[in-house]
Amino acid sequence: MTTLACKPADFRQACDDARAESCCVGLVPTMGALHEGHFSLIDEAKKRAGFVAVTIFVNPLQFAPDEDLGRYPRALQTDLASCRERSVDLVFAPEPESMYPSEFQTQVSVGDLTKPLEGAFRPAHFDGVTTIVAKLFNLAGPSAAMFVRKDYQQWKVLARMVQDLDMPIEVIGCPIVRESDGLALSSRNRYLSASERTRALGIVSGLREAHDAWDAGERSPETLRALTEGHVSANFERVDYVAAVDPDTFATRSEPGTRLLIAVAAHLGTTRLIDNVVLGEDPRP
Amino acid sequence: MTTLACKPADFRQACDDARAESCCVGLVPTMGALHEGHFSLIDEAKKRAGFVAVTIFVNPLQFAPDEDLGRYPRALQTDLASCRERSVDLVFAPEPESMYPSEFQTQVSVGDLTKPLEGAFRPAHFDGVTTIVAKLFNLAGPSAAMFVRKDYQQWKVLARMVQDLDMPIEVIGCPIVRESDGLALSSRNRYLSASERTRALGIVSGLREAHDAWDAGERSPETLRALTEGHVSANFERVDYVAAVDPDTFATRSEPGTRLLIAVAAHLGTTRLIDNVVLGEDPRP
Repeated sequence: MTTLACKPADFRQACDDARAESCCVGLVPTMGALHEGHFSLIDEAKKRAGFVAVTIFVNPLQFAPDEDLGRYPRALQTDLASCRERSVDLVFAPEPESMYPSEFQTQVSVGDLTKPLEGAFRPAHFDGVTTIVAKLFNLAGPSAAMFVRKDYQQWKVLARMVQDLDMPIEVIGCPIVRESDGLALSSRNRYLSASERTRALGIVSGLREAHDAWDAGERSPETLRALTEGHVSANFERVDYVAAVDPDTFATRSEPGTRLLIAVAAHLGTTRLIDNVVLGEDPRP
Repeated sequence: MTTLACKPADFRQACDDARAESCCVGLVPTMGALHEGHFSLIDEAKKRAGFVAVTIFVNPLQFAPDEDLGRYPRALQTDLASCRERSVDLVFAPEPESMYPSEFQTQVSVGDLTKPLEGAFRPAHFDGVTTIVAKLFNLAGPSAAMFVRKDYQQWKVLARMVQDLDMPIEVIGCPIVRESDGLALSSRNRYLSASERTRALGIVSGLREAHDAWDAGERSPETLRALTEGHVSANFERVDYVAAVDPDTFATRSEPGTRLLIAVAAHLGTTRLIDNVVLGEDPRP
């Protein structure tokens, strides 16, 4: 049976009860509009914990005023059905007011790791992410929490927060789930028109060409980056970044290494998509 | 028996073990150089929890470069003996490198409550306090943590952090312990020369005069503030602030209320002392 909690105190109590029965809590924080990417996180949580909690919260703190908070897809009833189907134990879907009452004034922020890539284009984004995730962690007391590596920087930032603040939680980065044609699953994909959906594959083509070049022995970060950028620039209306950086520090790489993160963010119409591959580690997208 | 842990992992393990044996953990975070003020926190913790942990850590993050980090009193062996005498279960005395390894980059910060009073004179102080206390909370998993109301603003800031981040912890503010002549106990009192020690009583005289006036019916915040300031200015070489503010928000009060925080910070030589009283709530200092 899937329990729905809407109040933070109820969510905490249900997780406390689970731990009191010697169940580890596995947490899957989401913004809802669940898709196969989220389901893979739920599957992973079920492997790792006897009690799986999914949170559904479109966190206003991580959206800038000019971003898509208002139109971000909400689908609570469908999401609940999906969670029931997958025997999720607990769904937490709070109202913003219960997470951020008027006197709320605390922030958790990670430093250097949040500055490049997404941080350069969404300056307050990661502070919003780390703050809400810290709250969810403190409410749920999970032993492990699942995040998808499509939001690669987010995963690394949260792992850094957990380590720096000594939270007793394992932060798991799960593989990106893709459509059959390679497009990374994202709740934002539903914004795309048919022609945008076709052009969105420019990211995948770029990442694939970089992956193929890597497999063929190419190790120059700039060459691999430029191969990706060619496809992205040809298909997207605006490119925020195509970066070739250290997968752990996000420092720009000029020298070849054994692993290289190629990360992309680009716009089609009013939709912003991100994707990435870690060369030397990930399979071909 | 009092166990000493110096490594964060050992501290966490000892607290985990205590909770596994159904003991609540009561935490007393200190910077060491323990005195009767700290002992009153330990006594309170023993009332509230089956397992009492004292942390001793002079936290570099909460000192500005021009402050007294280097000369802050360290007395680990004496402190350990005091903890043994009081049957403290666990003492955690880490090295700064184990709390802040080189890649450390996360900060917990509270907003408006940290801006006035101490925050106006020690701009990065509270970020350092909230960050280290969040770490200690996450390591220890206490059900309650004790702080002294001499650091009144610190207590309120930490209570705010705990509430905002949904930490399942009770933050207890314990009464100020004073010398027989009224001077609030502080590890920094040992810096005072004999003549400075005498003049230090100017704060107590000021707080007492305000308290007496309140008891006699005076309710004007500015009058009560000025009564205190007279004594402080007459005895101290430099006054950071003498404030009459709302005890919960620290907003400056111009209208009478049922409670009023009079808070003082002032310098004698190289020593900075703070003290306070909540009129309408605290006994006469």
